[in-house]
Amino acid sequence: MSDRGRSRDSRSVGIVTPQVARFDEPLRLACGRQLKSFELVYETYGELNADRSNAVLVCHALSGHHHAAGYHSEEDKKPGWWNECIGPGKPIDTDRFFVVSLNNLGGCHGSTGPNSINPDTGKPWGPDFPVIRTRDWVHSQARLADRLGIDCWAAVIGGSLGGMQAMRWSIEYPERVRHCVVIAAALKLSAQNLAFNEVARQAILSDPDFLGGGYLESDTVPARGLALARMIGHITYLSDDAMASKFGRDLRSGSLGRGSEANAEFQVQSYLRYQGSQFSGNFDANTYILMTRALDYFDLALEYNNDPVEAFRHARCSFMVISFSTDWRFSPQRSREIVDALIAADRPVSYVEIEANEGHDAFLLPIPRYLDVFSAYMQRVGDDA
Amino acid sequence: MSDRGRSRDSRSVGIVTPQVARFDEPLRLACGRQLKSFELVYETYGELNADRSNAVLVCHALSGHHHAAGYHSEEDKKPGWWNECIGPGKPIDTDRFFVVSLNNLGGCHGSTGPNSINPDTGKPWGPDFPVIRTRDWVHSQARLADRLGIDCWAAVIGGSLGGMQAMRWSIEYPERVRHCVVIAAALKLSAQNLAFNEVARQAILSDPDFLGGGYLESDTVPARGLALARMIGHITYLSDDAMASKFGRDLRSGSLGRGSEANAEFQVQSYLRYQGSQFSGNFDANTYILMTRALDYFDLALEYNNDPVEAFRHARCSFMVISFSTDWRFSPQRSREIVDALIAADRPVSYVEIEANEGHDAFLLPIPRYLDVFSAYMQRVGDDA
Repeated sequence: MSDRGRSRDSRSVGIVTPQVARFDEPLRLACGRQLKSFELVYETYGELNADRSNAVLVCHALSGHHHAAGYHSEEDKKPGWWNECIGPGKPIDTDRFFVVSLNNLGGCHGSTGPNSINPDTGKPWGPDFPVIRTRDWVHSQARLADRLGIDCWAAVIGGSLGGMQAMRWSIEYPERVRHCVVIAAALKLSAQNLAFNEVARQAILSDPDFLGGGYLESDTVPARGLALARMIGHITYLSDDAMASKFGRDLRSGSLGRGSEANAEFQVQSYLRYQGSQFSGNFDANTYILMTRALDYFDLALEYNNDPVEAFRHARCSFMVISFSTDWRFSPQRSREIVDALIAADRPVSYVEIEANEGHDAFLLPIPRYLDVFSAYMQRVGDDA
Repeated sequence: MSDRGRSRDSRSVGIVTPQVARFDEPLRLACGRQLKSFELVYETYGELNADRSNAVLVCHALSGHHHAAGYHSEEDKKPGWWNECIGPGKPIDTDRFFVVSLNNLGGCHGSTGPNSINPDTGKPWGPDFPVIRTRDWVHSQARLADRLGIDCWAAVIGGSLGGMQAMRWSIEYPERVRHCVVIAAALKLSAQNLAFNEVARQAILSDPDFLGGGYLESDTVPARGLALARMIGHITYLSDDAMASKFGRDLRSGSLGRGSEANAEFQVQSYLRYQGSQFSGNFDANTYILMTRALDYFDLALEYNNDPVEAFRHARCSFMVISFSTDWRFSPQRSREIVDALIAADRPVSYVEIEANEGHDAFLLPIPRYLDVFSAYMQRVGDDA
């Protein structure tokens, strides 16, 4: 491996290559519609052991994808999104575990989604792609587990929307999950969470280039709306403290209020504009709408008399719940609701609130105590495997 | 007065009529430009006493205007924006005080602003209207005080951006203010505050109907951008708690995820959409940009070595500072920074943090302890007058 590959990061999984699994048996969805067939793109890191007991499923969040660790080529500068947590000697230790990370159904990174061809029309699905709910992801992930010969996951793990998938796994397939790691998540969105998602979607829907979702056929993209949606999201991922220490009120130039609004004057403005424009070049608007709706609809206990204790009584696995002190998107209080319900449901649960300045984003970052606690729990998962 | 006028609200100031003051002496602005002349629209409530010592200036916030109390006609259904606090027997008691409330320079409710005609071109100013800072408002308000024969305000009062004007008054014209009431404000915006304003402005700027601010000449308005900006703002005005108790996850219809995104499914979505569309029909986009920039630029201590203590040493008045427990736009911590600086600068200050569920919006609402404390302080102001 060259200087630019694994050697620049001795604890990297190195070069990885996505794979595609095609499923031709129809998948019935929670919305009542079905997909006749679908594809999932995924990556694996580490080796499946002989008794197939060391497999770990990593579920991604709103704008995530299958590329969670390592690099796609020697020239690739940016590793996968959870490279801090997946690799040899890292919390999800690829020397011990066989890690599976996929792009969820409805995504825009290779799995069947709004950009795929609808076999009934020969055109991209676009806005006609079915509404997807978290349970649909879990069911499609179970198909992938079947395909890989994994009867039971050593652990299902996710942060944010990924943590919601992990919880859903624990009650949809209790026999197929030994450990569930739920990071920076919640049992359901609050009204404020819903409100932010609504504004983000409205930004996309009201972009004239969205064309009711049919932008692909007109060879355009609602770049302005997507950028706004990302900017709104980004504010909620960072804590007020993190923004203060990152930018404060630092100016890009010397003085205020003499220029035109077209020029960003505060550092935080140009940062947000950059984040927005990067995202709008890399993400699909219909997928963004689909993902935020899945987030909105997630309500673990809805079909269990709105009682999360009743919901978790169906689970058979052990749980690890992690929250971050300055996360205001899914605050520690939301994690404590999960923990309280698990305890009342008599499920084994470990909980830790990590002191971290970085807000919701902390779950992606190499915060020492977070990595230590996560590693210690995964050690236990490995000992069970 | 009819059933529909003052009698429906025995503590109303009744029917009020806006007045216009025209100023023909040029006003030099902080940005270096000047306005050759300008007009301010204002309302007054109560009577100026013989020694002109009972005048109170009310400063408005981001989207406010001169119409703070009473009704504009017998048919008028909605009173002024601070009707809860201004009127006979209310905290700003019009039986004791002569209250002046104006639309700020740059506004869109009658005072000179982007919608006014630029005398040099004969066309609306639009985006060429000068950048306005809080101190410019204070200077223009001082001109209005001169016109009304008010040498010294009994009190300058404001919430949010209005509180910032009140603080600026206290150090720009120390001899002209006896009391300063600063409600739900801050010494300057945080990076997170700046970020929200940036996204709101970007929503407007990226609306194709904004036309670089020249929409008036094309007989259009950037309604989508303004609606988004208002939705974003609205989320920050309400606490998570307030949203939870107002909407929770209540649905507009029975089931989830079967409809199209065009239909709001949660109550909070339709509420935000309504707020957005109402606002976009009533507010000017160039003014919104101007007001948010004034908010961004406000930094009380910037010219005082970034030391608010040094800034407040120039003040001569007494202060009342009020914050609200669930306000996360300008949290109680931000008010305590004001109070700490005032104490260090040896200025008399009373401070109260009101327990209230309603977030930043609380300053507009009839919360009993808030009204009581505010009334008690204003009683003292009146005794001094």
